[in-house]
Amino acid sequence: MKITALAGGIGGSRFLLGARAALPDAEITVIGNTGDDITLHGLRICPDLDTVMYTLGGGISTERGWGRHAETFTVADELATYGVGPAWFGLGDRDLATHLVRTQMLAAGYSLTDVTAALCQRWKPGLRLLPMSDDRVETHVVIETDEGRRAVHFQEWWLRMRAATPAREIISVGAEKARPAPGVLDALANADLVLLPPSNPVVSIGSILAVPGLREALIGTPAPVVGVSPIISGAPVRGMADACLRAIGVATTAGAVGAHYGGRGHRAPGGAGAGAGGGILDGWLVDTADTGTKVPGVTVKARPLLMTDVEATVEIVRAALELAGV
Amino acid sequence: MKITALAGGIGGSRFLLGARAALPDAEITVIGNTGDDITLHGLRICPDLDTVMYTLGGGISTERGWGRHAETFTVADELATYGVGPAWFGLGDRDLATHLVRTQMLAAGYSLTDVTAALCQRWKPGLRLLPMSDDRVETHVVIETDEGRRAVHFQEWWLRMRAATPAREIISVGAEKARPAPGVLDALANADLVLLPPSNPVVSIGSILAVPGLREALIGTPAPVVGVSPIISGAPVRGMADACLRAIGVATTAGAVGAHYGGRGHRAPGGAGAGAGGGILDGWLVDTADTGTKVPGVTVKARPLLMTDVEATVEIVRAALELAGV
Repeated sequence: MKITALAGGIGGSRFLLGARAALPDAEITVIGNTGDDITLHGLRICPDLDTVMYTLGGGISTERGWGRHAETFTVADELATYGVGPAWFGLGDRDLATHLVRTQMLAAGYSLTDVTAALCQRWKPGLRLLPMSDDRVETHVVIETDEGRRAVHFQEWWLRMRAATPAREIISVGAEKARPAPGVLDALANADLVLLPPSNPVVSIGSILAVPGLREALIGTPAPVVGVSPIISGAPVRGMADACLRAIGVATTAGAVGAHYGGRGHRAPGGAGAGAGGGILDGWLVDTADTGTKVPGVTVKARPLLMTDVEATVEIVRAALELAGV
Repeated sequence: MKITALAGGIGGSRFLLGARAALPDAEITVIGNTGDDITLHGLRICPDLDTVMYTLGGGISTERGWGRHAETFTVADELATYGVGPAWFGLGDRDLATHLVRTQMLAAGYSLTDVTAALCQRWKPGLRLLPMSDDRVETHVVIETDEGRRAVHFQEWWLRMRAATPAREIISVGAEKARPAPGVLDALANADLVLLPPSNPVVSIGSILAVPGLREALIGTPAPVVGVSPIISGAPVRGMADACLRAIGVATTAGAVGAHYGGRGHRAPGGAGAGAGGGILDGWLVDTADTGTKVPGVTVKARPLLMTDVEATVEIVRAALELAGV
């Protein structure tokens, strides 16, 4: 079975741990968000790709959910002593080696797809990890300050401001000219099942969908598309998705996020009718706390969604498979 | 009093510790060797400038003589796990922060002189540290292998091969087009005393002298020029200067190195006659083990030259002052 999943960082990675465990024989392709990539100290940093790679490769800090296990911050401390910021970005020593390798390979002319594959040769995540695009797309957040409106990089808003300054708009800079990375459209067109893990609907899944052709590929794929709600009982399970949803005028409820993704319309077996609804979902898993949620054109099922451990996550993945009828 | 010193890495730095202690009120300018600079992992590394900066700034590893005190090698270990070399270069985590700052500033258009001054704002070495040139000059070593002659970067020859493969030639790549960094010629022309610490005569002092205009400035300065022999009893005090001297056909003796630098000729008070000898030395301090050494046109004095601690080094500096008559 071929499974293609869109993924952000922590939530997406934990979901993928469950998918890999539930389906040891499946070919899993992950289309990773690169919208929150950033260049710091001349180093190209891809937080979401790295979180997937480290989590599936056994190198993640399970306490933090991001960055490397047994991490140290010697270089960052030294940079701070030099007065070189930003101090709000947690740049670990182990992690930094990944960025050095990536930056060097990119400078040598390799694509981000090539670089990610090369890094994964070490991490062996047991799935194929593709960036959504080899082109630079960066999520910027428009905020209102005493000095007027200005845009900041998503990482600055997320980490330095802790998403407390209201976002007026969230922009994918460069998205309009970006192309899907090699293999991305094929992975959607030839999947037996497409999964949307409980990643941030705006700055993770939304950034991926901002790449021209991605949304159309989801609408058009003959495979069923099932999403898992990142919102339980009107609040994000982790992270600050509510602040992002507010910026795009979507309520922080499982139903509103499902409706934001939208239904593909009635989908007969074999894909006939798929896409008629203009949305991307066939099925939507919500938590039992949100039982009764309805999304037009989407089959909704309620079950416990807390990914407390891999076993619990395996059960969520199985429920998604069941909902998809595969 | 204005003192200008040429300096390589470890030996030069230890000598400068003594000079600073002996002459707390002197304005000391150091012209640092940049011939052994190297770009690794996209980072611009200036080993000799950093050794001077760390040593005088109290950040050096006194055990190793190079690199930072309390250094860790997490990033380098990670790079090795990624299979990214070279493993023979000891790239410490603390040290790496310096290279990140330098690389970023150079990429932003600052000169190496500017960058070095900025880094020294943190380290406060108590003297002015200038690179010999803002232009890229790299020492390469021509070696003979089974596959024929080839040139390797000095660092590879020095660190990986441990200078065991005989050097046929030592080349300063880019030197012919390099210009002395701002302030370098002035520092030589306006000094009250010029000192040559016991640095490597070939790849440290020799690299500095390879920058067009530097040798002429030493020949022409009205200040007395006094050198301290890095060779005692026919062997380098530390390092592998003998392997470098062999490459240029100079014997590993205090006398041969003194003669290689050459005498400026009889120097009357006020500088009359300076430079007539075509060399750069007025005075040459050799160790008591080399008592009786004669260098044509140079006043030679023998005294203990082992820089066992700062106090011993202060006495060496005082002997140099006395020899210079300043």
